[in-house]
Amino acid sequence: MKDSATGQLHVVVLAAGKGTRMRSSRPKVLHEIAGRSMLAHCLDTAAALQPASIRVVIGHQGEAVRDAEAERQVAWVWQDEQNGTGHAVQIGIDGLRAGADDRVLVLYADVPLLGAGLLERLIGSSAVVSLLTVHMDDPTGYGRILRDDSGRVLRIVEQKDANEAERQVREVNTGILMARYGDLVAWLDRLESGNAQGELYLTDIIEMAAAEDKSVEAVIAEDAWAVTGVNDRLALSRLERVYQQRQAEALALAGTSLADTARIDIRGSLDCGRDVSIDVGCVFEGDVRLGDNVRVGPHCVLRDCEIGAGSTVEAFSHVDGVVAAGDNAIGPYARLRPGAALDSAARIGNFVEIKAARIGERSKVNHLSYVGDARVGDDSNLGAGTITCNYDGANKHVTEIGDRVFVGSATQLVAPVRVGSDATIGAGSTITRDVGEGELAIARSRQKAIAGWQRPRKQKD
Amino acid sequence: MKDSATGQLHVVVLAAGKGTRMRSSRPKVLHEIAGRSMLAHCLDTAAALQPASIRVVIGHQGEAVRDAEAERQVAWVWQDEQNGTGHAVQIGIDGLRAGADDRVLVLYADVPLLGAGLLERLIGSSAVVSLLTVHMDDPTGYGRILRDDSGRVLRIVEQKDANEAERQVREVNTGILMARYGDLVAWLDRLESGNAQGELYLTDIIEMAAAEDKSVEAVIAEDAWAVTGVNDRLALSRLERVYQQRQAEALALAGTSLADTARIDIRGSLDCGRDVSIDVGCVFEGDVRLGDNVRVGPHCVLRDCEIGAGSTVEAFSHVDGVVAAGDNAIGPYARLRPGAALDSAARIGNFVEIKAARIGERSKVNHLSYVGDARVGDDSNLGAGTITCNYDGANKHVTEIGDRVFVGSATQLVAPVRVGSDATIGAGSTITRDVGEGELAIARSRQKAIAGWQRPRKQKD
Amino acid sequence: MKDSATGQLHVVVLAAGKGTRMRSSRPKVLHEIAGRSMLAHCLDTAAALQPASIRVVIGHQGEAVRDAEAERQVAWVWQDEQNGTGHAVQIGIDGLRAGADDRVLVLYADVPLLGAGLLERLIGSSAVVSLLTVHMDDPTGYGRILRDDSGRVLRIVEQKDANEAERQVREVNTGILMARYGDLVAWLDRLESGNAQGELYLTDIIEMAAAEDKSVEAVIAEDAWAVTGVNDRLALSRLERVYQQRQAEALALAGTSLADTARIDIRGSLDCGRDVSIDVGCVFEGDVRLGDNVRVGPHCVLRDCEIGAGSTVEAFSHVDGVVAAGDNAIGPYARLRPGAALDSAARIGNFVEIKAARIGERSKVNHLSYVGDARVGDDSNLGAGTITCNYDGANKHVTEIGDRVFVGSATQLVAPVRVGSDATIGAGSTITRDVGEGELAIARSRQKAIAGWQRPRKQKD
Repeated sequence: MKDSATGQLHVVVLAAGKGTRMRSSRPKVLHEIAGRSMLAHCLDTAAALQPASIRVVIGHQGEAVRDAEAERQVAWVWQDEQNGTGHAVQIGIDGLRAGADDRVLVLYADVPLLGAGLLERLIGSSAVVSLLTVHMDDPTGYGRILRDDSGRVLRIVEQKDANEAERQVREVNTGILMARYGDLVAWLDRLESGNAQGELYLTDIIEMAAAEDKSVEAVIAEDAWAVTGVNDRLALSRLERVYQQRQAEALALAGTSLADTARIDIRGSLDCGRDVSIDVGCVFEGDVRLGDNVRVGPHCVLRDCEIGAGSTVEAFSHVDGVVAAGDNAIGPYARLRPGAALDSAARIGNFVEIKAARIGERSKVNHLSYVGDARVGDDSNLGAGTITCNYDGANKHVTEIGDRVFVGSATQLVAPVRVGSDATIGAGSTITRDVGEGELAIARSRQKAIAGWQRPRKQKD
Repeated sequence: MKDSATGQLHVVVLAAGKGTRMRSSRPKVLHEIAGRSMLAHCLDTAAALQPASIRVVIGHQGEAVRDAEAERQVAWVWQDEQNGTGHAVQIGIDGLRAGADDRVLVLYADVPLLGAGLLERLIGSSAVVSLLTVHMDDPTGYGRILRDDSGRVLRIVEQKDANEAERQVREVNTGILMARYGDLVAWLDRLESGNAQGELYLTDIIEMAAAEDKSVEAVIAEDAWAVTGVNDRLALSRLERVYQQRQAEALALAGTSLADTARIDIRGSLDCGRDVSIDVGCVFEGDVRLGDNVRVGPHCVLRDCEIGAGSTVEAFSHVDGVVAAGDNAIGPYARLRPGAALDSAARIGNFVEIKAARIGERSKVNHLSYVGDARVGDDSNLGAGTITCNYDGANKHVTEIGDRVFVGSATQLVAPVRVGSDATIGAGSTITRDVGEGELAIARSRQKAIAGWQRPRKQKD
Repeated sequence: MKDSATGQLHVVVLAAGKGTRMRSSRPKVLHEIAGRSMLAHCLDTAAALQPASIRVVIGHQGEAVRDAEAERQVAWVWQDEQNGTGHAVQIGIDGLRAGADDRVLVLYADVPLLGAGLLERLIGSSAVVSLLTVHMDDPTGYGRILRDDSGRVLRIVEQKDANEAERQVREVNTGILMARYGDLVAWLDRLESGNAQGELYLTDIIEMAAAEDKSVEAVIAEDAWAVTGVNDRLALSRLERVYQQRQAEALALAGTSLADTARIDIRGSLDCGRDVSIDVGCVFEGDVRLGDNVRVGPHCVLRDCEIGAGSTVEAFSHVDGVVAAGDNAIGPYARLRPGAALDSAARIGNFVEIKAARIGERSKVNHLSYVGDARVGDDSNLGAGTITCNYDGANKHVTEIGDRVFVGSATQLVAPVRVGSDATIGAGSTITRDVGEGELAIARSRQKAIAGWQRPRKQKD
């Protein structure tokens, strides 16, 4: 918990809005940037400031909003009727145990790219009110920051109320501000709804502060994206790209080779070792770790997995919930599902699906196979078309394959079944009983030749 | 048919040019934007104006051009020798039954992003000649619009004829114009080819109009892309991206979540329900409808299909000519071909190809299978490696599978064949005869074990 | 060997730097743009100038650098201790057999987009020293070019030494220069390390030249990317995109239809016939040739292959080391590996892997198959799930299939094996012996029906 010289910090997060323009059945603040809701981004940022309390004002679909982040150490405050930002903050701080010198920071759950770094500057201010502003090339529609000749903030004038000179001002209000608790309570009480929308505007407190000659500081955000709010999915999509681009650039600067920083999506954490390279079109979800010298080919999807050093993931691979020990060759077109574990130098080739199966060192499943609920030892080779029949329609069973086993192509292993080390299975066999060590198992029909066979003919329509 | 106060509207579309810089064996105007030819875009725009007639001037590879849009209600007019835009319009209106007060709108088939909205402004003009102009940051090479002090258009001066002051003018001619029929005929007759190219320039009529003190209005296009013509495939590619970006932004604003508006291609119509999300790299062709809450993963191709509400299409799926009822799980790596129909909650997994087959409610084909020319009932499960042998080398035959059937892995169903409801097929069976309801069918060789089998040894080279 | 009026040209390439910010175990200059190392790009550019000699100064991980381009006709010169660019050039020309009037061109191995065209302008200069400069919007950090009123270059002032007026100068030094050998030697001898880094700066020779009233010419590069050096992987990634974008635009201008010039990667040579179209997300590596009218679908990877005229490569195909004669239908999801050869009109469908196999004219392998080490004749059809069992665990064997053969689905061909022309193989057969011409071969178990079979029940946990 971080205390400032002038008291404790409390954060109020506004998350009650309807978000009509999202045209969604989901609350706006639960829409996602990089796989996490905007609310989660905002709450993470708030938490990083280590405030004394975080209070989230909810309203529209409030239960869903609260449930989505139920495990957070925050207070949920209901705003049943939405009557402007001033009203929301009133409700947000109602019942807050705060001293007059404590400070209240107001954040918005639909401003997902706001980082704690920028806020540190804001909360470092010793003014009675500090607000975050930004310079915009085209400020149309935003409240302009009016300053006196000495640069002191006087008030915020809304677009419709601004005269021609005021409209030339390019510094605009972001809505994000911090105020001394004692003053804030007093000002909020005096807010009036005599405006176009008939709502209580939080920003009106700036003028009150100036009128009382209380210090008002404007902290200018260098980065307009950081203070951009989301009102529709086009804005959401744009912020997604900004976020992704920044992640990608940071990754490149940290030493990962990216074929295209504009064509990588990281929705979670991506931890890369030394000399990792990632080709175009890859998507990372959840927590992904790539060891030294891992190379990921074009158009791969990796989710919650750990790919050991020296491994290669070829194009079009889909890897989810997997641990690969290292020096693995995966893909192209490898589908590794949760519970797959590759020991060192195991190889999984094209059109192969592995689920809940351990593949031993240097073992290979190179072509057109399905291996599920299985354990394969070291140095074994599963031929093309190997299928573990792990499901009998009711239950899943396990297939165990030893070391140095050679499974011929198009073999079905009807689980539960065990194949001993050094065993060989003839191509095209359906294996229903255990195979002993070193045995050759074969289940095959005699090949018959029928000469002069008459082929079917094309039927007339 | 829409009549203006001053007569009927006739559209002349110029589509006779050679398009040498396309370096193509195809006529330029048949090159495509978003899966439809530039000519088709232009004719759609023309038709949206509901003119009294549309006449398309063709020449170079004219038969191919005409055949590509043969079903259109337009007149095809041959320009055997290309002698400039003025000449083309002369030919275009030759034989037109129009009154002197009718108006002729001249369009170009290689300007694909011109929308009817912009043209409505042009045809709303009451001037004798109205021309579409645009402001360019770098007007080099374009004909500049010269106006008098009152803003009245005087003439168009070509780059090479412009003096230094005229070259500073950034308003340029797009070539698109509308003129009163009676005047147009007279002016075209007076065109002369005494210029560098020795051709008849349509734009020379502006000066004639001004000289006669006829009203000339310039309608300024805000959107430069809308009036950009295509002369080479780089321009074509750029307009493709502009078109796609606009479609994507409109889709996002309408409430579809797009991971990247720069990485979606829609070549046809894409109709999305509520809360649809589309990941990066997807391509949509033909008419695609996605129901509420449909989620499309990265790098999917969907063509002429309808995916019902609540369905998920995972990465790398290729779906063409398919109806999915809803709540379906498709992919990753699912290949659904024309005639595939998924009933509610049916699941199609990885490396599975479905063609001309109905899959019943809650039935699953999850791994490495080919199901073609088949009907599968409800609640059935087709194991990995199931293959319908629908083709005997001459004819296609149908496989029928009932409800609650369990097809063991690596089963071949040699069509025509019928498997009754509640039947079970043992893994690795080749099914050539019908299977009765509730029966277990199995076609399997006895598994033999051969101890002490000597494996092949690596041959020396 | 190209001689100028004033002597021979010698090129010194500086490639000794550590590249710490690459955060790599690999030497910086071996990092790649478009699949080739930056050093290779630089040496190609140098070689295109046909100089009398090329000397590469190496140091950090010098063996690796040298080994990577060991076959080049260049001299490798060791700079054991890195002491600035002046020092590096001193070492670079030490022992060079050059006349006083010969010229020395200094290049940097981490400036990969520098083209020979731009250098031709530089080496065409007759000045005693010619240097390459560039205008930058933000020149911060770069050495500014100071000229006298007549435009003559006086000296280069580094950022930290520049006064306010000098910092306004936007023409900056690229470091690339050419100097008369005799003068260069003398100037290098007089370089001093009395600067912040304590290194010998090559650029100090400019002031020496000016002081001696020797002619100094600055050639301005129009293209800032061409002279951009790489210090980290973000810069590398950006140059990669610039390089790719330029390749793509050139390809489009030359007549290939690209769905998106920003989403194609060419890492090697791509040679396209007439009317080729390439969809989004494709990656080309090595030498790829596409014949007339070839169409490549979205998200394909093609490497070292030749796809004949009229062929279609559908989405998600991975084609490597392949020759396709023409009119081939490939994919979607086709995996063609080295040694695959498709005769005219052969078709390879989804989830099919072909390796070291020739597929005859009009033959089809359409679904879920593995064909390796095989020869297939003309007009044959390999059903879904066909597998050539080419590997017995120790050796690879060949499968030979004649013309007009019909291989039923789920057939395994245990190599070595030969199937005569006009033969038919029943679905689900394991073929271990040769099949004669026109024969029907079948290896299949009798189908048994077991009525009233009790299915497994779900076990309780």
